[in-house]
Amino acid sequence: MTVGIIGLGLIGGSMALDLKRRGFAATVLGVENDPVHSAAAEKMELVDRVVPMDECLRLSDIVVVAVPVGTAVRMVPQILDSFGSEGASGKVVIDTCSTKGRICRQVKYHPLRGRYVATHPMAGTEYSGPWAAMTGLFDGRACIFADAEESDPQALALIERMYDTLNMRPIYMNSDNHDVHTAYVSHISHVTSFALALTVLDKERDEKHIFDLASGGFSSTVRLAKSNADMWVPILTQNRDNVLQVIDTYIDKMNQFRKAIADGDEDRIRALIGEANRIKKILR
Amino acid sequence: MTVGIIGLGLIGGSMALDLKRRGFAATVLGVENDPVHSAAAEKMELVDRVVPMDECLRLSDIVVVAVPVGTAVRMVPQILDSFGSEGASGKVVIDTCSTKGRICRQVKYHPLRGRYVATHPMAGTEYSGPWAAMTGLFDGRACIFADAEESDPQALALIERMYDTLNMRPIYMNSDNHDVHTAYVSHISHVTSFALALTVLDKERDEKHIFDLASGGFSSTVRLAKSNADMWVPILTQNRDNVLQVIDTYIDKMNQFRKAIADGDEDRIRALIGEANRIKKILR
Repeated sequence: MTVGIIGLGLIGGSMALDLKRRGFAATVLGVENDPVHSAAAEKMELVDRVVPMDECLRLSDIVVVAVPVGTAVRMVPQILDSFGSEGASGKVVIDTCSTKGRICRQVKYHPLRGRYVATHPMAGTEYSGPWAAMTGLFDGRACIFADAEESDPQALALIERMYDTLNMRPIYMNSDNHDVHTAYVSHISHVTSFALALTVLDKERDEKHIFDLASGGFSSTVRLAKSNADMWVPILTQNRDNVLQVIDTYIDKMNQFRKAIADGDEDRIRALIGEANRIKKILR
Repeated sequence: MTVGIIGLGLIGGSMALDLKRRGFAATVLGVENDPVHSAAAEKMELVDRVVPMDECLRLSDIVVVAVPVGTAVRMVPQILDSFGSEGASGKVVIDTCSTKGRICRQVKYHPLRGRYVATHPMAGTEYSGPWAAMTGLFDGRACIFADAEESDPQALALIERMYDTLNMRPIYMNSDNHDVHTAYVSHISHVTSFALALTVLDKERDEKHIFDLASGGFSSTVRLAKSNADMWVPILTQNRDNVLQVIDTYIDKMNQFRKAIADGDEDRIRALIGEANRIKKILR
């Protein structure tokens, strides 16, 4: 089996490592248009070879699109086009992006729609680039298969087996539901971290030593603010309506805290914290 | 040296363990008014003995007040009173609370003010109670000494030596500055985590499986929402003005994101994320 991975960043690079090490792929090819990333990926031996796109598409049984979702939306239909009549011969393309609605709508009526499997491996760190790639990144995490019934059963089964090699737990849902869910459990926490970083960085202009006091709690709350704009700009714009709805709920909660603190209403602050503490039962 | 610790929770219990293990204290006494915590602390052998308050004050060279700041504000002056003429004989009281302005104002004109050292060891986890205590909690972290010039030099030197045993890095600042700084690098991140938890928990009422998708990023951003109301209600009320100012800046940043996303203004989103990314240079 040859797997071709387009985009050798955190996700693509980590996938390359484990698919090869664990024997799912005899050969892993990579496509990377950033010359520094490309050179680093070769030096780090993330893939067997970095190749041009057309060579990757010609030689790969599975093509993994692991690029920012704005690019993926254009790329997936082109890759399906490239399969041509060979589409029937078994090539499959997948993407790994964090929003699924728009990309699924984009290919809905493509004649080779069945050869596309929409996935979202829910794993990552706040780092990006080939140097962020690591083995074991996906182990034990959830992988979402969106609109799986629109993929050919053979294509779906192959990709299920691929993610099983990565030790991921499959979850099936439609692409619109996916985007609502990820707005709540992923996209909003990035926005809140970015806003927190901006708040404290503003203050740092006057108070140079403010970060001397930053503790583990602050670091953990703000760490997603290191995340990459290339990845997050298209996520936030493609998932606009869901993200706005969550931001509105969130700002409303912040205002409830603000009012309770401004009023010195200890009972109300206690009630809000007590309610928030229910998160303990949910997170391990 | 006998150290008496009032409040055998995360901070008091962890301090007890390392001060004893590392030989700073020959004897560590504990005071704990919650009967379950008290029994657990004895069973876990966090201290040599759990004793009544008066016995602790009589036998201890250093009294550590490690209780929520609302209680500490009342307790520290009472403990100074209890030193009476013995105050001169060398007893010292410290507190470990996360706000320093009000407690320092409270004792400013106390005749034994010099026997009090206002400290804030900036270490902790989102867990509380004696079962959260651990060795090494303070290693390498910052400890703030607030208004240190108002403590007797001998008392200050003793407590500096105590925190040096805990491997903490001393930072000196006035109590009002401390409260501004901690509003930015600690208090606000708790409020944002509480608000995030509330936002997602609200959605969970309709979508029972929403947390199936929660990834490491979400968990890290929301983990402070497990924090205890007994500790946080008095912090947020005592540091009201600073916290409100930071919340207002923060809500303004959230609204900037909201507007950029609503407008589909990719350049603006990119600029905001790029600015937030500066946090990378500051956090290791």
